[in-house]
Amino acid sequence: MIVMVKPGVKKNEVNGLIEWLKRFDVDVHVSEGEMHTILGLVGDTTQIDMNLIRALAIVEDVKRIQEPFKKANRKFHPDDTVVEVGDVKVGAGHFLFIAGPCSVESKEQITGVAADVKKYGAHMLRGGAYKPRTSPYSFQGLHEEGIELLLEAKKKTGLPIVSELMDLTHLKYFNDVDVVQVGARNMQNFEMLKALGHIDKPVLLKRGLSSTLEELLMSAEYVMSGGNERVILCERGIRTFESYTRNTLDISAVPMLKSLTHLPVIIDPSHATGISRLVRPMCLAAAAAGADGLIVEVHNDPEHALCDGPQSITPEAFKDIVTGVGAVRSALSA
Amino acid sequence: MIVMVKPGVKKNEVNGLIEWLKRFDVDVHVSEGEMHTILGLVGDTTQIDMNLIRALAIVEDVKRIQEPFKKANRKFHPDDTVVEVGDVKVGAGHFLFIAGPCSVESKEQITGVAADVKKYGAHMLRGGAYKPRTSPYSFQGLHEEGIELLLEAKKKTGLPIVSELMDLTHLKYFNDVDVVQVGARNMQNFEMLKALGHIDKPVLLKRGLSSTLEELLMSAEYVMSGGNERVILCERGIRTFESYTRNTLDISAVPMLKSLTHLPVIIDPSHATGISRLVRPMCLAAAAAGADGLIVEVHNDPEHALCDGPQSITPEAFKDIVTGVGAVRSALSA
Amino acid sequence: MIVMVKPGVKKNEVNGLIEWLKRFDVDVHVSEGEMHTILGLVGDTTQIDMNLIRALAIVEDVKRIQEPFKKANRKFHPDDTVVEVGDVKVGAGHFLFIAGPCSVESKEQITGVAADVKKYGAHMLRGGAYKPRTSPYSFQGLHEEGIELLLEAKKKTGLPIVSELMDLTHLKYFNDVDVVQVGARNMQNFEMLKALGHIDKPVLLKRGLSSTLEELLMSAEYVMSGGNERVILCERGIRTFESYTRNTLDISAVPMLKSLTHLPVIIDPSHATGISRLVRPMCLAAAAAGADGLIVEVHNDPEHALCDGPQSITPEAFKDIVTGVGAVRSALSA
Amino acid sequence: MIVMVKPGVKKNEVNGLIEWLKRFDVDVHVSEGEMHTILGLVGDTTQIDMNLIRALAIVEDVKRIQEPFKKANRKFHPDDTVVEVGDVKVGAGHFLFIAGPCSVESKEQITGVAADVKKYGAHMLRGGAYKPRTSPYSFQGLHEEGIELLLEAKKKTGLPIVSELMDLTHLKYFNDVDVVQVGARNMQNFEMLKALGHIDKPVLLKRGLSSTLEELLMSAEYVMSGGNERVILCERGIRTFESYTRNTLDISAVPMLKSLTHLPVIIDPSHATGISRLVRPMCLAAAAAGADGLIVEVHNDPEHALCDGPQSITPEAFKDIVTGVGAVRSALSA
Repeated sequence: MIVMVKPGVKKNEVNGLIEWLKRFDVDVHVSEGEMHTILGLVGDTTQIDMNLIRALAIVEDVKRIQEPFKKANRKFHPDDTVVEVGDVKVGAGHFLFIAGPCSVESKEQITGVAADVKKYGAHMLRGGAYKPRTSPYSFQGLHEEGIELLLEAKKKTGLPIVSELMDLTHLKYFNDVDVVQVGARNMQNFEMLKALGHIDKPVLLKRGLSSTLEELLMSAEYVMSGGNERVILCERGIRTFESYTRNTLDISAVPMLKSLTHLPVIIDPSHATGISRLVRPMCLAAAAAGADGLIVEVHNDPEHALCDGPQSITPEAFKDIVTGVGAVRSALSA
Repeated sequence: MIVMVKPGVKKNEVNGLIEWLKRFDVDVHVSEGEMHTILGLVGDTTQIDMNLIRALAIVEDVKRIQEPFKKANRKFHPDDTVVEVGDVKVGAGHFLFIAGPCSVESKEQITGVAADVKKYGAHMLRGGAYKPRTSPYSFQGLHEEGIELLLEAKKKTGLPIVSELMDLTHLKYFNDVDVVQVGARNMQNFEMLKALGHIDKPVLLKRGLSSTLEELLMSAEYVMSGGNERVILCERGIRTFESYTRNTLDISAVPMLKSLTHLPVIIDPSHATGISRLVRPMCLAAAAAGADGLIVEVHNDPEHALCDGPQSITPEAFKDIVTGVGAVRSALSA
Repeated sequence: MIVMVKPGVKKNEVNGLIEWLKRFDVDVHVSEGEMHTILGLVGDTTQIDMNLIRALAIVEDVKRIQEPFKKANRKFHPDDTVVEVGDVKVGAGHFLFIAGPCSVESKEQITGVAADVKKYGAHMLRGGAYKPRTSPYSFQGLHEEGIELLLEAKKKTGLPIVSELMDLTHLKYFNDVDVVQVGARNMQNFEMLKALGHIDKPVLLKRGLSSTLEELLMSAEYVMSGGNERVILCERGIRTFESYTRNTLDISAVPMLKSLTHLPVIIDPSHATGISRLVRPMCLAAAAAGADGLIVEVHNDPEHALCDGPQSITPEAFKDIVTGVGAVRSALSA
Repeated sequence: MIVMVKPGVKKNEVNGLIEWLKRFDVDVHVSEGEMHTILGLVGDTTQIDMNLIRALAIVEDVKRIQEPFKKANRKFHPDDTVVEVGDVKVGAGHFLFIAGPCSVESKEQITGVAADVKKYGAHMLRGGAYKPRTSPYSFQGLHEEGIELLLEAKKKTGLPIVSELMDLTHLKYFNDVDVVQVGARNMQNFEMLKALGHIDKPVLLKRGLSSTLEELLMSAEYVMSGGNERVILCERGIRTFESYTRNTLDISAVPMLKSLTHLPVIIDPSHATGISRLVRPMCLAAAAAGADGLIVEVHNDPEHALCDGPQSITPEAFKDIVTGVGAVRSALSA
């Protein structure tokens, strides 16, 4: 961490600042220039609050040199993390296909889709029981009943299930859910993240609509600092000025994240683009860029899905994606 | 709402679509063109899910013509809403000053600041007991103790208090809090919004970091559709590529929102800019643009604030803002 | 095009508006609703200025239904366009590798890189003679001398060359340049686009840093409406709030553009990410997403490149990319 | 400037780097930490290309501490610059009103508007002769004839004129134009900026749609480094995801820029919002925030303006703005 002292600050004030900074258990190196004195803080600075230092009257600016995350940082954990969900693995070469409908609508729908996607190569079933909808007048999900229907589909197919937690008060219904998803809008719901740091199941953490990769990793750090290190990161599109696509899928986040962290990184092309015909090319691109998996919306009747139909694909289209992704991955590992 | 039918769709399919659309209690007008047939849906379309229609195989696109919010819509409530908190009013010409520290740190601090800002013109005291912090290693607030300290400051000064709710499980501690703040990161925490639709106190709703004004109004609609119509909107800066300021304060949101809705609109210049010397000019600009109030971070010792010091101002600087805002408002009403 | 009339406008005024709209050679269909009257304009609306209509006192809003571009529109030209540069082709299955240094620095450098990239699979040589640099104090390119050095490299290797035009006054030096590049900062330099509509060589048009795809296509339309239909589109990253990467490469632009237009679409991963180790994964992703080609910065000594070294790769790394892209494309066409 | 050396680099390599860095006429201070060695470059670093250093294999990252602009920097020129155009002054307390139509349409129109805005308080007349239009099918301006009509209006009213230069080849027609405007899309047209560094008239430089304030100041630096220090900066809205307004007017840019630079800063509320009823509140806000002036689109017949009618206001509305801005400025200077 670098602290720039304002021009004209007196020597004894600078010395006072240096003493104060040493309280954070760091070494302080001084560079005196014509206009600025610069202090280099050397040591573990992850737990220093930059804003606290920046607020001091004699400080002009503070810049971070080391990443502010630690448990999620590849520098301290060079090997890829493999997250296991029963027999299913993701990370370090294990590629994960998660598929299923945006929202659980009925027993027939969810068990039908589950059987189909299993047949075509999915390792895990997704399905929303609690749905974050922009409008209070839109379908909000089947709630507890939705979770029960997911569990029936799990029993029939053996697929582990992942579902989104929208509020901590619902956590009690997630006992048999295999992976808890934190949605984009809750990526910085810090109370939720803290609570999920104490559960014994993997967390699928989606990047917020306007979150930086550093913030995503800090949110992972919240969960991990509570003791739960089974975090799967998910890029799902960020908000830009472009309006032909719903969001802009940031595929460069895959190699960038993988250099910064040891956690597995998957891609959600359905929410990112909002357009079903873009799902396949984005799946192939994600695989080529080195993603560890995909989470795709599949519906047996996309036209009549109660939620986000335009981005859902049919089970047959999903099959085609699994084949394509396999081909790309084989070609690149050959 | 306008529905564009894909080119080449057969007449009987279009007729089937028209029949299906009429189920939503709207009239459907047909315009047949060379390449496109266009259907105009006329009536109350706020409760129609555009995505559902867009998912149909024969539909090319759907465009909304009326705003999707109703209770928050000025078209249906032409007069300004006045939100009352005890004797304090905001909206329809009543200008509200909320001031106080980013986070409650101690009894001395909060009662000291409360007395100061009251003396200089604040109508309400703000103070964070639960703090949303990007890093799990930063100070997270005093929690219930913070609420208690706020209540002591309220008792001493008579100022109503506003504090941020970070999770529904904390709501039980907010019984004597006068206004519940929903932070930017929770603007689309729909479970929280639904719950706040059933409480009997005003909600201060902050715009999300990358939320559109329409989404802000839809979140207000969530609260209002539950029965609680006492919503105060707050613009607090949006995320852009600019990095000199922390966020970009969207002051044009003030007149834009006020033409779209009857709810009061206030500005938070402290979080928006992150720089204390920009707070005063942004307060003056907000007042000149027609804002109904301001929420400003004031600390009696900004240098040693445990959170967000660089954007806090002193009580004396707050006094100067109150004077300046008063002068601007008088000049414009003369 | 849809025109919404303001509530309460009198019938004879609406009729006047309808008559006025018919001057644009379109049919006007009327839908009268409770609150709004909606006019549907049917016919060729590409040449109608929406703003002109929106400015009318009795009009509430105008929405476009058809894309405002025509010559670039796939609807009117369903088949892929193949752009030819001598023997080199791009589009409709012809994949194009363009490689070379950010800027031309010396004869040895450019001929050396040219020979290397040709050997490893490049079809065309890139090299900047005029460099758009944010700072007036940075290296600005070798100008005319740079063009001459490129032409020498072309003579030695037979590779066609592409170079960026920064100002129309330089066009006279581009006689033997094979493809004229319009940089991101000039994407809306409309005078330049108009002039390039009248030359007899292909134009490589880069998307602006904050341009929408529609604007990119409108800029292509400028060139094409002048008579020059040999336009290659290039996505090179857009500006977002993310700061780990220089820009955010919008790979979904590839399938989105290819559904909107018949023009070839290539990707520039070097400028988009600004980080050499991200170049390969982004090249593979672009190929998997269906791009028609790549433009990659290659330098024989990236460490000592006079411009944008951090994003340049070595010729050997380029070879590796050509192999990888070939493998991905074979796998997907199999 | 701070250079972070990669972990594990050998001492003699670091020493080699230090020697190399000293070639830039700076002192190099060394801080050795456990994981990183940090080099502090002290002296004039404005002319050092960060990217060149960042490209070195042993360098992890480079951070700038001083601003990269010099002639535009308030640190080196603490006093406000006053730009003079004949008798008209802007900066250091001199407030400038520029008004006029988006584009010059006819002699009657431009002389009529000129007379009106002069009567109501404008100091300068604006009018576009060359118009940057997204679509090649939209009205592109009257070109040279437009300049001539502006000069007639200048002769009649005595108002100095400002008009946008779209290409250097048109500069010959600007001999009698008083201020040359560089539009948002040309803010990084570096050849144009260089050329304008050698003319003897003020330059009105608009911020690009997605440009940072630092980039705006670097573009000003281009002009100033050529010798022309008469630059007026103009904030005109940046592109964000918000769609109710055309762009997002960044009013905090006013106090931020004024702390970074000594140049005058004006606001264009018309292009920023694209909505005439938002022009007045944004003008008042800009004045309250400390802007040095305003450039406003005024048309005698906004409904039939050939370009950007929806954001134009009438001369009477302009009068009302001049009065309001005067009231705000008096109130704040009292």
